[in-house]
Amino acid sequence: MPDFGAALKRLIVGRPMRSDRAGGALLPKRLALPVFASDALSSVAYAPDEVLLTLAIAGGSAVMISPWIGVAVAVVLITVVSSYRQTVRAYPSGGGDYEVATTNLGGNAGLVVASALLVDYVLTVAVSVSAGVLYAASAIPALRDHEASVAVGVIVVLSLINLRGLRESGRVLAVPVYFFMGAVGLTAIVALARLALGTLPAVESAAFDVVAEPGYEHGLVGAVGAFLIARAFASGAAALTGVEAVSNGVPAFKKPKSKNAATTLALLGGIAVTMIVTILFLANKTGVRYVDDVSQLRLNGAPVPADYVQHPVLSQLAEAAFAGVPVMFYIVSAATGVILFLAANTAFNGFPILSSILARDGYLPRQLHTRGDRLVLSNGIIILAAFAAVLVLSFDASVTRLIQLYIVGVFVSFTLSQLGMVRHWSKALATEVDQVERRRMMRSRVVNSIGLSLTSAVLVIVLVTKFTHGAWIAIVLMACMFVLMKAISHHYSVVAEQVRYVPTDESSRSLPSRVHAVVLVARIHKPTMRAIAYARATRPSELEAVTVAVDPAESAQMLREWEELGIPAPLRVLDSPYREITRPVMQYVRSIRRRSPRDLVVVFIPEYVVAHWWEQVLHNQSALRLKTRLLFVPGVVVASVPWQMAAAPGVPTKISGPVTTHGDRQRNARA
Amino acid sequence: MPDFGAALKRLIVGRPMRSDRAGGALLPKRLALPVFASDALSSVAYAPDEVLLTLAIAGGSAVMISPWIGVAVAVVLITVVSSYRQTVRAYPSGGGDYEVATTNLGGNAGLVVASALLVDYVLTVAVSVSAGVLYAASAIPALRDHEASVAVGVIVVLSLINLRGLRESGRVLAVPVYFFMGAVGLTAIVALARLALGTLPAVESAAFDVVAEPGYEHGLVGAVGAFLIARAFASGAAALTGVEAVSNGVPAFKKPKSKNAATTLALLGGIAVTMIVTILFLANKTGVRYVDDVSQLRLNGAPVPADYVQHPVLSQLAEAAFAGVPVMFYIVSAATGVILFLAANTAFNGFPILSSILARDGYLPRQLHTRGDRLVLSNGIIILAAFAAVLVLSFDASVTRLIQLYIVGVFVSFTLSQLGMVRHWSKALATEVDQVERRRMMRSRVVNSIGLSLTSAVLVIVLVTKFTHGAWIAIVLMACMFVLMKAISHHYSVVAEQVRYVPTDESSRSLPSRVHAVVLVARIHKPTMRAIAYARATRPSELEAVTVAVDPAESAQMLREWEELGIPAPLRVLDSPYREITRPVMQYVRSIRRRSPRDLVVVFIPEYVVAHWWEQVLHNQSALRLKTRLLFVPGVVVASVPWQMAAAPGVPTKISGPVTTHGDRQRNARA
Repeated sequence: MPDFGAALKRLIVGRPMRSDRAGGALLPKRLALPVFASDALSSVAYAPDEVLLTLAIAGGSAVMISPWIGVAVAVVLITVVSSYRQTVRAYPSGGGDYEVATTNLGGNAGLVVASALLVDYVLTVAVSVSAGVLYAASAIPALRDHEASVAVGVIVVLSLINLRGLRESGRVLAVPVYFFMGAVGLTAIVALARLALGTLPAVESAAFDVVAEPGYEHGLVGAVGAFLIARAFASGAAALTGVEAVSNGVPAFKKPKSKNAATTLALLGGIAVTMIVTILFLANKTGVRYVDDVSQLRLNGAPVPADYVQHPVLSQLAEAAFAGVPVMFYIVSAATGVILFLAANTAFNGFPILSSILARDGYLPRQLHTRGDRLVLSNGIIILAAFAAVLVLSFDASVTRLIQLYIVGVFVSFTLSQLGMVRHWSKALATEVDQVERRRMMRSRVVNSIGLSLTSAVLVIVLVTKFTHGAWIAIVLMACMFVLMKAISHHYSVVAEQVRYVPTDESSRSLPSRVHAVVLVARIHKPTMRAIAYARATRPSELEAVTVAVDPAESAQMLREWEELGIPAPLRVLDSPYREITRPVMQYVRSIRRRSPRDLVVVFIPEYVVAHWWEQVLHNQSALRLKTRLLFVPGVVVASVPWQMAAAPGVPTKISGPVTTHGDRQRNARA
Repeated sequence: MPDFGAALKRLIVGRPMRSDRAGGALLPKRLALPVFASDALSSVAYAPDEVLLTLAIAGGSAVMISPWIGVAVAVVLITVVSSYRQTVRAYPSGGGDYEVATTNLGGNAGLVVASALLVDYVLTVAVSVSAGVLYAASAIPALRDHEASVAVGVIVVLSLINLRGLRESGRVLAVPVYFFMGAVGLTAIVALARLALGTLPAVESAAFDVVAEPGYEHGLVGAVGAFLIARAFASGAAALTGVEAVSNGVPAFKKPKSKNAATTLALLGGIAVTMIVTILFLANKTGVRYVDDVSQLRLNGAPVPADYVQHPVLSQLAEAAFAGVPVMFYIVSAATGVILFLAANTAFNGFPILSSILARDGYLPRQLHTRGDRLVLSNGIIILAAFAAVLVLSFDASVTRLIQLYIVGVFVSFTLSQLGMVRHWSKALATEVDQVERRRMMRSRVVNSIGLSLTSAVLVIVLVTKFTHGAWIAIVLMACMFVLMKAISHHYSVVAEQVRYVPTDESSRSLPSRVHAVVLVARIHKPTMRAIAYARATRPSELEAVTVAVDPAESAQMLREWEELGIPAPLRVLDSPYREITRPVMQYVRSIRRRSPRDLVVVFIPEYVVAHWWEQVLHNQSALRLKTRLLFVPGVVVASVPWQMAAAPGVPTKISGPVTTHGDRQRNARA
């Protein structure tokens, strides 16, 4: 039973790695970029779509302003990247926003940031995988209508890859990420060149008219129009996620860690900005129409045909740029689909590290801090995958619906982190005397102050425009995480206080005066005899066997047999008018404790140890219940005396490691 | 944690009952009739419907022969009841068909019967509850389209009632069963009287024509027609289920048990026969049309309106008999719906008793033999409810689809049981000399022989006509049950052989020469100190503390502290290059065993015992894994040293029974 699935685990996650190999799993920049940057880069696959789709609510002409929204997103992105370059330098330990907020703003602020980031990591997985499946279904019609199931399958595959370990992830991911950059770059260059030459054709959807939704008949005018622009901007801001993953992942970089992380950040910022601005510009020039519901589209005044499939914006651009070479549409779609799945991988790197840090600080269960045997934080990976799968299933893998929940968390942590950084520089300036260093710090403080004002402004925009569309769900989830982590932390500190050992306090060291051994007996068989032999070997002050009289006739018979066999321990029969096993034993043990409170009671329970986990259900059910109850009685030790069952003939045992070897068993039989 | 839900359980199932009250829970005839007969009686609520529906496949005129099918079912029913009156007299112990087949035909025949009955009990619940929900939805339009969920809800309620115990069930059930008999009786009398007076109106559905399905355009002619008649008869034979429940339930009757059971059987047979014949006769006279799919119906050549609701046959008859008094339609529908739910209760009485007997004989896990504290066989009830709910959900609570699986099992056990009874009388006659007694036995053998030929004929008809319609599923389930029970029985006998105690074989009594105590240490705190104190109290030959060096720096620090504190046991630090806890400990324990195979190793594991089950996830995860593994090493006893944690302030502890009282804890602290 214990090693059930161990072989499968080995097969999937590989052999365990030694601690001293941990240093070898560090990432050079050329691998760190694909591992940490795929999130921010891949968002160009859906952020422009969501911008266009939101603007399309106000009709076709409203979509014309989309490049300006791209510029606004680019400005925020550059600011945030600059700010985080300060952070990775000041805090190379990888706590990222959580550490910055905790150190400079206190534990509660840190916990708010942690809650926000944990929720957003889950959403990164859900959104990226859903968008990737959207691209896959755009190219492979057979996947349509099964998006949610396919997305869950992808999440499972990603978890398995990550359970194998970080270094392999970096290698596996580098190729497709660079391939995606190449594909998007080539599409952009070809499209721009043909645009300059005047040979760039319009996309298929350019033929459609977009009907404004009720209330937006006059386009982007007044407060309603401004609000819609803000909403489109808030959706486009999805391009900013992933930046903080680098700041959490600094320890995974090769040395000099901070410098390499900062360089990687700059690289990814530059690439992301170029991509998003270019895509929105080209979408505008080629007349891409992208809507939430195709019933909004009209072709010469009539609704579009029922079999019209709306491809994502990037696919539409590839179709136009490489008109006449249809294979390129599939290549770009495939590259984009894959990068989106890999983007989810960013969260698979960030989430387990953050939850391990939180577990170390006592905010999450301790087993999240325990590294699995492949140097990865297995529990965190599994939890992240499970939550993301639930979200994908709940929202039916709809990117447009999931993206409403997204980004709130990121901007909460951006804002608090920038505030923390401003405080950090102010504190540092209070003691620093070196003028060169002071100037550098003041420059950094200015960068972070700009970052603070911009990210807090975006946070307000995101909250206001998306709250009723789904952001409230993300906020509720964050609040739940916050309360949960507070409760866990409280519990651990209460426990730590209770169990603290004070050498002068003799109570926990005082030796019980006598040992009263009780052997539980169900039937007279070898396991019982072994339990009595073992109990005798511990030379207790008092030894007795105890059985419960569920059937009085049977017990009387057992008592006779017991005496005939001359078993060297008296057998006490406990009455059980309600045919229970647990209660009479509990009452008897308590009565021993009452009679002699200074005695230690050791209850020996013979247990069958079966060779197959499914045999477990046929044995030990009463013993298990009893053991759990007895642990609640003070001054009682529960000793399990195992009887290792041989496997049934013809059924090979599946247990490799901990099961007794044949030699062991023979030796034991001879002993 | 152990008493989680105990309060809820008390609330629902009441206080526990003493064994000596078991006699008081026996049933007088007036309560036994409703408890055991509701299955057979309630089938008049769906068996006629299925007969009519099957015949309607061949068109409206084919339905005219339905009363003759009623007569055929009645003949079989009378024969089977007469046969079982012999069984309850010959076998008053309640093993019923299982005991009869095992005793007279051998263990495998008994196991076939048991498999068949277990499957059929589950189907009884599924069919009866689904039919009851059909009646409820016929009267309450809001329930339509939610039939499966409502049915599962009813199954849950029934389980709770049965977990409260048999006696209360009898009382709760008597009123509605007698009410149902009264309602059906009144409907029949009024309808027959108005028929005689010529004032009985036609039912609403009489206005429809029934279109024959393709292949049946010529009505019930040739082999196809004969096959359809046989199928209609097989569906009508559903009226026979429930008879065997009485033979399984003899011990629940008041004394004289056998005589009372036989009388109850005769009563229920008479009532059931009268009901089914009368209903099919009246359905014919009032021109009831009942079809599987309302598209088969035509009104003056046109399809019926989309909003036409096809009421069950009994409801239609009530509507006609009490035309002008619409409330009677609701009263009869309600009475029928309720009796159908209660019919499922028959299985809730029979299934747990049978599975308890099978568990006693070693064919099912032993905990099924353990009575719960309300004198009922709780585990059996819960398993029955779970399987029935799965069936209802799988077949979407469709009576017509579920009934195809039904009855196969009943007739398998009928046939084998009758064969067994014939053998029983033959064997008895071989030794009996008293002539009066011999005549009685020969008479009984004739009755059972007639029963055997008739039930085996019906079994063949059921198998042939229903196999492809779903009966194969029931047969597969029975085969699975058979194989499972064989496997369990084999396992238990292998185990019993292994653990049999032979007084001359000294190996299991031989005393280990020395005790080597190992205390596992994670940190230096009170639970560790207590574990060491308790380990010392057992005065082992050797005592050492062992810790795993997951973090070498931490372990070195702990070693220093250990020595400074002068803890009276040496601390051994185990290396763990893979940061595992379990493996190094396992290896070390094995190495002790290798060094001195005759020693007993007692591993003391300090454990936190938390006050709330949800706190458990925060503690002991490593300890739990380790305990499970250590049990596989021979010659090792695993001793849990609990540290009872006080509940966190402000959170009241929910555990009443086994938790330490405040006094206990104080006493312990002083000790």
